[in-house]
Amino acid sequence: MNTPCPLDNIRIVLSHTSHPGNIGAAARAMKTMGLHALYLINPRSFPAPEAEARAANAVDILQQAKVCSELNEALKNTILTAAITARPRDLSHDTFDARQGAMELVQLAQQQQPVALLFGPENSGLTTAEINKCQIIIHIPANPHYSSLNLASAVQIMTYELRMALTGNIPLSPAKGELADFNELELLYAHLEQLMVTSGFLDPQKPKLLMQRIRRLFARARLEKEEAQILRGILTALGKRW
Amino acid sequence: MNTPCPLDNIRIVLSHTSHPGNIGAAARAMKTMGLHALYLINPRSFPAPEAEARAANAVDILQQAKVCSELNEALKNTILTAAITARPRDLSHDTFDARQGAMELVQLAQQQQPVALLFGPENSGLTTAEINKCQIIIHIPANPHYSSLNLASAVQIMTYELRMALTGNIPLSPAKGELADFNELELLYAHLEQLMVTSGFLDPQKPKLLMQRIRRLFARARLEKEEAQILRGILTALGKRW
Repeated sequence: MNTPCPLDNIRIVLSHTSHPGNIGAAARAMKTMGLHALYLINPRSFPAPEAEARAANAVDILQQAKVCSELNEALKNTILTAAITARPRDLSHDTFDARQGAMELVQLAQQQQPVALLFGPENSGLTTAEINKCQIIIHIPANPHYSSLNLASAVQIMTYELRMALTGNIPLSPAKGELADFNELELLYAHLEQLMVTSGFLDPQKPKLLMQRIRRLFARARLEKEEAQILRGILTALGKRW
Repeated sequence: MNTPCPLDNIRIVLSHTSHPGNIGAAARAMKTMGLHALYLINPRSFPAPEAEARAANAVDILQQAKVCSELNEALKNTILTAAITARPRDLSHDTFDARQGAMELVQLAQQQQPVALLFGPENSGLTTAEINKCQIIIHIPANPHYSSLNLASAVQIMTYELRMALTGNIPLSPAKGELADFNELELLYAHLEQLMVTSGFLDPQKPKLLMQRIRRLFARARLEKEEAQILRGILTALGKRW
């Protein structure tokens, strides 16, 4: 990377992770969204072959991961840490959902200051003491009857939202072939209408609604030049016997 | 569930999944976001202990999963299917990012019609033939230097966005006529193809590109039931002399 990216200032901190596979999967999730800074607080087993297997081509994230013996070490120099929970559970913190929280974090990270997201162990979640070291709580919206997200899945959703917060809603305008112009479309409709009449499908006494519907459906498709030509070609072929 | 939820109308379809662990993780991802309908097309190994292990408390999703031998079976009765890809790769389909695509799908699912999200195998992704049976493409924004999301992670992001689309403020688009379903569209394409061959327009030795283009242009239009019927009627009329 040549230019500094705000995502470089965002740490993913995993506290007391039990399964090394989840660490590897979290690393992969991070890299797919452009994050690199992984901090591990007292992982039960790391490094581990299972972590590397699940990391796929994100082993570089694992190799650069900082293993810490306590939370303070992982949060050093950060200006804000978000505790990630499956549901809001602490009323005295500012609480955001995943989307709003990601926007808060990216805004700070854009100022070239380190921020962190803190994820608890698989089974027990974050302790009150850990949450107390965070400035905000982010909860990931989930099914109230089963909100038990896998750890790496939670990392995936949060890193996805961070990327979305950074890149914003860039509307996709897929490059298309050249669109058929007005004349080409009118020739197509005229050709089709003429064949509909000669084949007896369209009663020329009351033609309007039917042609209107057909125009509408093709209008929605935004026909390209070539597509209009293909349709004309089909009509020419089918019309040979009329 | 007492009241019908639009998420119940959304199928997650996994094509030719290699690793049963990913199937289990996908089931868990679905359940955390409130989705239940899982379809598996020719999974390499299912049922499997690894799937159950990774599903955690979502084994009910696995037990109810429908194992299909081909895509048509999994898409039966759907009115729209989205091909999920890591990057936009097909220029003639309507293409959305994960957020916009989820809104499209939830809007349709709110009309109590089945829709589907189609995910390809871990290594190779969806085939062109599979994408051709879809009406839209959804790409999940990712790091351009490493966009290789784990399958279950992709399912997690999409189901999260579906949940967000449902619970967020969605501007509803104007009411449309009832959409043609998968079966009706396939009958239309088959009818058209048959006439194109008998009239000599289509050389059955090299039919693929032409039908693909036609499928895509009609896919963009999102044909309503009545419109599909009109087109079938026109074909029947024009075909009488062939």
